[in-house]
Amino acid sequence: MATVSVVQLAPVLGDLEGNHARVCDAVRRAGTDVVVVPELATSGYVFSDADEARSLARPAEAAVAPWVDVARETGALVAGGFPELGDDGLVYNSAALVSPDGLLAVYRKLHLWDREKLVFAPGEEFPPVVETALGRVGLCVCYDVEFPEISRGLALRGAELVCVPTNWPDEGRPDGERPMEVVRVMAAASINRLFIAAADRTGVERGVDWVGASAIVSPGGWLLAGPATSGAEAILYASCDLAEARDKRLNDRNDVLADRRPEVYAQVPTIA
Amino acid sequence: MATVSVVQLAPVLGDLEGNHARVCDAVRRAGTDVVVVPELATSGYVFSDADEARSLARPAEAAVAPWVDVARETGALVAGGFPELGDDGLVYNSAALVSPDGLLAVYRKLHLWDREKLVFAPGEEFPPVVETALGRVGLCVCYDVEFPEISRGLALRGAELVCVPTNWPDEGRPDGERPMEVVRVMAAASINRLFIAAADRTGVERGVDWVGASAIVSPGGWLLAGPATSGAEAILYASCDLAEARDKRLNDRNDVLADRRPEVYAQVPTIA
Repeated sequence: MATVSVVQLAPVLGDLEGNHARVCDAVRRAGTDVVVVPELATSGYVFSDADEARSLARPAEAAVAPWVDVARETGALVAGGFPELGDDGLVYNSAALVSPDGLLAVYRKLHLWDREKLVFAPGEEFPPVVETALGRVGLCVCYDVEFPEISRGLALRGAELVCVPTNWPDEGRPDGERPMEVVRVMAAASINRLFIAAADRTGVERGVDWVGASAIVSPGGWLLAGPATSGAEAILYASCDLAEARDKRLNDRNDVLADRRPEVYAQVPTIA
Repeated sequence: MATVSVVQLAPVLGDLEGNHARVCDAVRRAGTDVVVVPELATSGYVFSDADEARSLARPAEAAVAPWVDVARETGALVAGGFPELGDDGLVYNSAALVSPDGLLAVYRKLHLWDREKLVFAPGEEFPPVVETALGRVGLCVCYDVEFPEISRGLALRGAELVCVPTNWPDEGRPDGERPMEVVRVMAAASINRLFIAAADRTGVERGVDWVGASAIVSPGGWLLAGPATSGAEAILYASCDLAEARDKRLNDRNDVLADRRPEVYAQVPTIA
């Protein structure tokens, strides 16, 4: 059984050092085996232009070195987002998974949202799944999780827990409804029979507000924690038996991955 | 603007003639441009064995002839399910789309649920999308809609409205939650920016009960009608501007289909 938390916090735009302290403090307070923090947690999100994003981007090892330190101190796995300066000189909206052993994986966001397209280069590699002592952990970032190809591909790669650092802009919804971001995460978890832990941010930044709907969802698609509410920091917790996500059966005759018909899907050439 | 209804009715197992009357009566009462009725609406669902299913299966044209008649009488498009006796001698869990012009499309369910695997042969063709005077209408059946490959493929084929005849077994849920079947349909509509109209059945049959959650969902993923409640017949209505589903943009820079990264998805060979 792994303890998992999602940290809904408010990074301060441009305050790399302060944001590291905020993340590390949250990881210590969370005290869980896995801690997920938001997208671009080191830098903030609402860059005025590409230069500002570039000024806050660092090579991955350097960008998340303080997270490795706090992972060593606490024993936690930490997943979160940061602007990455690539070897190729491009700036990516990236996420890292770190452990007491160091940087386990870096992922560059494939699907850029709105003005991110003016600021970041899109990634070119499918998200990673990392074998850890707790189980197989996958990563993706925010808008990525709205692409069923991503959650399905992570499941096919064996992910048992998908960590989703996110900055979900608040786009409104009918009265009494959950944010559609949460509905989509519930469905993705259910369809692929895996855990999803999404850490959203809070804190209005240059006039942009966030839905603040951090959540942890079971392989059945049900909420184990959250959704958090907008406008407040929060740490949400759940105990997740990651082995549950290895079992894709719905009954004696159905299995959500084995029941797929890839040879038929290939009749629509652009599905993949 | 098209008027769309989903009819939650209770077929009587084995009563082909009575079930035709039930469907035709519902189509008349609905009075909408599109009417969706449940999976296996002509036959009922809980067959004791393959022989019983076969005894109720008919070639498609014959199976849905009364639906064509009522389509001519009312001007409606009708989508619904029936056990099909194929030219190949196999029995399929099929759905048809009929109009006043006749039988427009037959689809054989690709993903069979539980004991259906003992009774039906699985289809081998991706679900159809039919150009109609109202817009482009796609079809799939029940468990199919839990496969994101299906809703995505239908969107890529241009579907604006996906009709889903279904028989959703009631599998329970946490207090206060919507059925996960509805959550998945909401997410699929939102992810692909199209309308989904799902007609569930009611009426306990050989001890099996149904979630009874018929619903019509917008391209934003929000409920336009339903979910209906278990244990009661119902006709739910919505006005759907199918042209809305042609626009896949989320903002000036994002489009749910154009933002896809198929060349990257291909890095996970079994996605398609």
